[in-house]
Amino acid sequence: MKESGIGSQKIIRRKRDGELEYLPDDLTIEEPLEIRVGRKPIATTMRTPGHDEELAAGFLLSEGIVRVRDQIASVSVIRDNRVDVELTAGVKLKLNSMERFGTISSSCGLCGKTSIDAIRQNFPAVGSTDIRIDIETLLSLPETLRKAQSDFARTGGIHAAGIFAIDGEFKIAREDIGRHNAVDKAVGRAFLDELLPLDGHLLLVSGRASFEIIQKALAAGIPIVAAVSAPSSLAVELARDSNQTLIGFLRPPSFNIYTHVDRVIL
Amino acid sequence: MKESGIGSQKIIRRKRDGELEYLPDDLTIEEPLEIRVGRKPIATTMRTPGHDEELAAGFLLSEGIVRVRDQIASVSVIRDNRVDVELTAGVKLKLNSMERFGTISSSCGLCGKTSIDAIRQNFPAVGSTDIRIDIETLLSLPETLRKAQSDFARTGGIHAAGIFAIDGEFKIAREDIGRHNAVDKAVGRAFLDELLPLDGHLLLVSGRASFEIIQKALAAGIPIVAAVSAPSSLAVELARDSNQTLIGFLRPPSFNIYTHVDRVIL
Repeated sequence: MKESGIGSQKIIRRKRDGELEYLPDDLTIEEPLEIRVGRKPIATTMRTPGHDEELAAGFLLSEGIVRVRDQIASVSVIRDNRVDVELTAGVKLKLNSMERFGTISSSCGLCGKTSIDAIRQNFPAVGSTDIRIDIETLLSLPETLRKAQSDFARTGGIHAAGIFAIDGEFKIAREDIGRHNAVDKAVGRAFLDELLPLDGHLLLVSGRASFEIIQKALAAGIPIVAAVSAPSSLAVELARDSNQTLIGFLRPPSFNIYTHVDRVIL
Repeated sequence: MKESGIGSQKIIRRKRDGELEYLPDDLTIEEPLEIRVGRKPIATTMRTPGHDEELAAGFLLSEGIVRVRDQIASVSVIRDNRVDVELTAGVKLKLNSMERFGTISSSCGLCGKTSIDAIRQNFPAVGSTDIRIDIETLLSLPETLRKAQSDFARTGGIHAAGIFAIDGEFKIAREDIGRHNAVDKAVGRAFLDELLPLDGHLLLVSGRASFEIIQKALAAGIPIVAAVSAPSSLAVELARDSNQTLIGFLRPPSFNIYTHVDRVIL
């Protein structure tokens, strides 16, 4: 039950015709995960169980704790809801970063500009590669992501994140009740497989694009981020400053381009 | 611009007919807010600016830092992105609670059961009042909430939370890019106005119902929570244990009831 990230229970449903039925219903599992580094708890996140080692790796990457695969000696799922990361000898857990976990999000300043400056100190802008995606490829991605999703999708309570090659080739998809976690899992998998930087790739998220989604894509070196729903103001600012193309409301046949339009072959 | 929680910028839009247009687009503002208590930073959250004193009050309430209005001496918006709370002389900031801010969410254990037990220690189950809501009233609420929303709603990037009396009377609505923040603002307003416990009331959220949404409703003594989208497994467990009625997928004329169905007149 828990393994699949989905639970079931009996509910009462009022149907469209007003009739009531008593039937089983699926629920997305939500459980806390404690992430520890060197036995020290650094964060607890509410997530859908599964792929927890990827979640931990992606989280440490996007917080700037680790940058390359060999800085992680081991990632072990200790119990259902705890994952222990051991850093390679000599890799220090930076205290400044640690302090930032004392926040709800990974923001680190008092205004958007300060946050962006701090993020940009940790993660340089993506390079000016000449990768470009054509419209038909772009428009095909949401359907590919939906097909890659498991039956979880039917609960309507789960977010998905997918990584695609720039030619539209599907690479990896992860789901989670938290949008950030889905991205951490997908990016974490690529990180653990030593595939970073993902400079020839695109990240697609099933919901909105917040500041943190752009930050996580930047940490992985991803130059194009597409979202099915709206981006936030700070997401647009960070993407602009980081040389990332940001696409929103990707709902074929429509979409919006917010930044660095040159990577889309119009 | 910032005052309204909405920003504008030029985007490229691909329309349904494939035509491209270059036009202004609205974005939901996302900025970090630092919450300080007695000059000590205790949390930073990414939120839509506005109603920050309510957000701080609602956050402190749902974290169990304060329980009654007169424990707060003052709430001051110091700068755009910082709010200072002074507690009344003699009210101590509990360190255990403080440590919990070192987590992404307000979970506090390593499994759902532990979390629920800890929450329940802070917040007793709602009483067995005989309040009940009828179906027609329930079905009318989403439209009322939409009407109460400002133009932000057109960006598609904002969550709404509304508090209603059990007879359907609209009380308050707040919007935010973060679902938790929208609830903190609505509940925080009621808290600051000394209206707690909201035992004759219902909370409606425009998106999904996570564990934390139920927790925040419980902190305010709200017996019925309705969500336009899906609840999570832990949300259902907490609602069941807390004697709260949880309604999901409230999309007239349909809805699901997950817990304590007796409060809905079917």
